[in-house]
Amino acid sequence: MTRRDTRQLILATALRLFNEHGTPNVSTNHICEACQISPGNLYYHFPNKEAIISDLFQRMAMEWEGQPAPSDLSIESFYRQMEQVLTFLWEYRFLHREFSSLLREDEDFRRTFARLQKRRLAEIDGAIAAYMRAKVLRTLSAEEASALKRLIWFFSLNWLPFLETEGKPITQGTIREGIAFLKTVTRPFLRPDGVSATPPGAGR
Amino acid sequence: MTRRDTRQLILATALRLFNEHGTPNVSTNHICEACQISPGNLYYHFPNKEAIISDLFQRMAMEWEGQPAPSDLSIESFYRQMEQVLTFLWEYRFLHREFSSLLREDEDFRRTFARLQKRRLAEIDGAIAAYMRAKVLRTLSAEEASALKRLIWFFSLNWLPFLETEGKPITQGTIREGIAFLKTVTRPFLRPDGVSATPPGAGR
Repeated sequence: MTRRDTRQLILATALRLFNEHGTPNVSTNHICEACQISPGNLYYHFPNKEAIISDLFQRMAMEWEGQPAPSDLSIESFYRQMEQVLTFLWEYRFLHREFSSLLREDEDFRRTFARLQKRRLAEIDGAIAAYMRAKVLRTLSAEEASALKRLIWFFSLNWLPFLETEGKPITQGTIREGIAFLKTVTRPFLRPDGVSATPPGAGR
Repeated sequence: MTRRDTRQLILATALRLFNEHGTPNVSTNHICEACQISPGNLYYHFPNKEAIISDLFQRMAMEWEGQPAPSDLSIESFYRQMEQVLTFLWEYRFLHREFSSLLREDEDFRRTFARLQKRRLAEIDGAIAAYMRAKVLRTLSAEEASALKRLIWFFSLNWLPFLETEGKPITQGTIREGIAFLKTVTRPFLRPDGVSATPPGAGR
């Protein structure tokens, strides 16, 4: 295995273990065992567990940035993209489960998150403006546009944790339930003729 | 001090320390020191830290149940009540900060939360029906009523953590910002004549 392969193996294994057991219950020794490598080999790549978490978070942030933009400005593309985002976030579920404590205790995590949030919010702002120009959205007041932006961001960050507090499994089905919820609460921001083009309950 | 007083002192002190430092960073020894009582005295009341957390959570749940219902069925009373709920939840902020990990790791916590959630959701259901009968809300489809219920519950649980992820201080001001957000996103569910009685931006 090349050094690069080993690094990727450590990251993929740590991600799986963190998702299954939570970071407090996974040590670097556990990761070494699961990878069948020596501790020395792991420490060559990462000084400690926190560095692995940080790397995974940065990888997640980069992949999120790299998600393809909707192919067109239809509202269907927008919801489809939201569904992809949730499915993608599910791959890194340990992050949202431990979000508050990581945010409070890990300076690196806080910085990466602040950067991610700033970019995503700017992107949502841009998307709202584009959808208004394309007359998919009504002409929103500044107050409404800001509430819609927050609603979308709030939803992206919190839908998966929310399912877990409801004791529901996270599946393609419960993710789609989230999209149906998002459709209902965002419908009033759409132009009425946009609404009649996508009648209530017609969810994909 | 009576035994009852000591118990209350332990709970109040633990709440303050948990809110300030997070439960992982507070030991029963820290609590004893801050209370100026002996470990034996604390253990007389609580076998361990988890029992204190559990007791605080149950107290929070009971106090939440005991919050006064809105005095009338006006939409203003509803938003006023939501503001009270958030202000009240802030007193127990360590709970929402550590919510995911407590939920995953503490069986007692999970049971108490499930019971709380069931009751609150039933109460929101009842309130939505009452507000529809009082013609404050439009006549909502089952899908819309369910989305509105989730939106309100989602908001109650997540607004304070969300402010923290935005790096904002939690103050009466940022709580009211949350209420303004809630007003904007719930406005479409109100009857149009209800809307004109509370014009956009007229927030209290």
